[in-house]
Amino acid sequence: MSSTNDILTAVADILNERKSAPAESSYVASLYTKGLDAILKKVGEEATEVVMAAKDVEAATNVESSKNAEMHDDLQQKVANEVADLWFHSLVLLAHQDLHPDDVLAELERRFGTSGIVEKASRKQ
Amino acid sequence: MSSTNDILTAVADILNERKSAPAESSYVASLYTKGLDAILKKVGEEATEVVMAAKDVEAATNVESSKNAEMHDDLQQKVANEVADLWFHSLVLLAHQDLHPDDVLAELERRFGTSGIVEKASRKQ
Amino acid sequence: MSSTNDILTAVADILNERKSAPAESSYVASLYTKGLDAILKKVGEEATEVVMAAKDVEAATNVESSKNAEMHDDLQQKVANEVADLWFHSLVLLAHQDLHPDDVLAELERRFGTSGIVEKASRKQ
Amino acid sequence: MSSTNDILTAVADILNERKSAPAESSYVASLYTKGLDAILKKVGEEATEVVMAAKDVEAATNVESSKNAEMHDDLQQKVANEVADLWFHSLVLLAHQDLHPDDVLAELERRFGTSGIVEKASRKQ
Repeated sequence: MSSTNDILTAVADILNERKSAPAESSYVASLYTKGLDAILKKVGEEATEVVMAAKDVEAATNVESSKNAEMHDDLQQKVANEVADLWFHSLVLLAHQDLHPDDVLAELERRFGTSGIVEKASRKQ
Repeated sequence: MSSTNDILTAVADILNERKSAPAESSYVASLYTKGLDAILKKVGEEATEVVMAAKDVEAATNVESSKNAEMHDDLQQKVANEVADLWFHSLVLLAHQDLHPDDVLAELERRFGTSGIVEKASRKQ
Repeated sequence: MSSTNDILTAVADILNERKSAPAESSYVASLYTKGLDAILKKVGEEATEVVMAAKDVEAATNVESSKNAEMHDDLQQKVANEVADLWFHSLVLLAHQDLHPDDVLAELERRFGTSGIVEKASRKQ
Repeated sequence: MSSTNDILTAVADILNERKSAPAESSYVASLYTKGLDAILKKVGEEATEVVMAAKDVEAATNVESSKNAEMHDDLQQKVANEVADLWFHSLVLLAHQDLHPDDVLAELERRFGTSGIVEKASRKQ
């Protein structure tokens, strides 16, 4: 099975390819052509959508019923989808500014002291 | 070397541990205690910080000088750091709503059609 | 000359009219039809645009030249325009939730203790 | 009675005074000292809080009960308070960038064609 690293790196690879071939009529190519502000606008927009989706889960949780259980699952999936949108547009930004997801993940690892834990997890496998 | 999957999953594991032991006086525990709005506020805040950091890179790029080359590297690193903060607080949100980074990555993979590319990349190795 | 109160109240009056006649094919009517999330998405979006416009003023200020003086004025005007967009969509939200700009201004007055100062200013006239 | 113009202008006057006397240990003075990014961070933060407060009103509206009627009023007031915070930090930004609330209101008037309506309203009085 492909690891997350493959997924983020694969998305980053696609984004970099589209950066060098901006003529292509893709959504990402149009973001690059419009420039940094268009990309950042999407980052702000998707963050707001994450907030709204998460509030919808909370509202559904506060109302108990069997119908809501189903709705709750859909709303929970929507949060995952909105976070995917937010991370995707972060990846577009990274590519636009010549950064790689690994720069972010290295910082995450450094800051939140996960290196030890990751090492331990690796040894277990 | 540990893959990204290990990093995101390791952070998620830590976050879930802290969720079940909220008494602990950590930053994350305090976010959980304050509840959803405190977490979402951070998501919104970090998105704004990403926007500002990216604009700083752009401003430095528009002013050419050797001094700026150095400054540019620092500012570029700051974008990576702010994206790390944004992703981290997304991970806190996911844990809080019983979601896993894999739910997000599966959606990224599904939506942006990277599965084929990931497969191809895997075969190369 | 019409005071600010007239301006904010006039915009609010228009917004309320359009709320009761949602069939009308206006931008605001389409926001009402799409519902709260569409309005809030715009609030988040416009906040991001304010941030970017303000950063552009800062970047232009840091680069001195006569050409920049002109550019600086345009960029400063853009900040005013983006704040106008942000306030406008706040007014749409207020109308959607049966609130009036006066509810906001009363809170501003209460919180920031301007009532004394406003009184003093009134007496001066 | 003081009009809105007095309120926004009075807040702007206070903000400008504090700008010229930054030594003062006020909240606003500390924002000025920290600089533009601190102000913009607050704008982004308050926009997120507006979004969350508005979603809380929506959630309460969807659950009918007499207890909720009261809660609904409190939540509605919270939206007004959060919009006040958002507008207040917009005013801090305007002062920081040598702009006046009138620059924003003139744009609102120009863009949304309220001048005619304001005129008509004035004649009625």
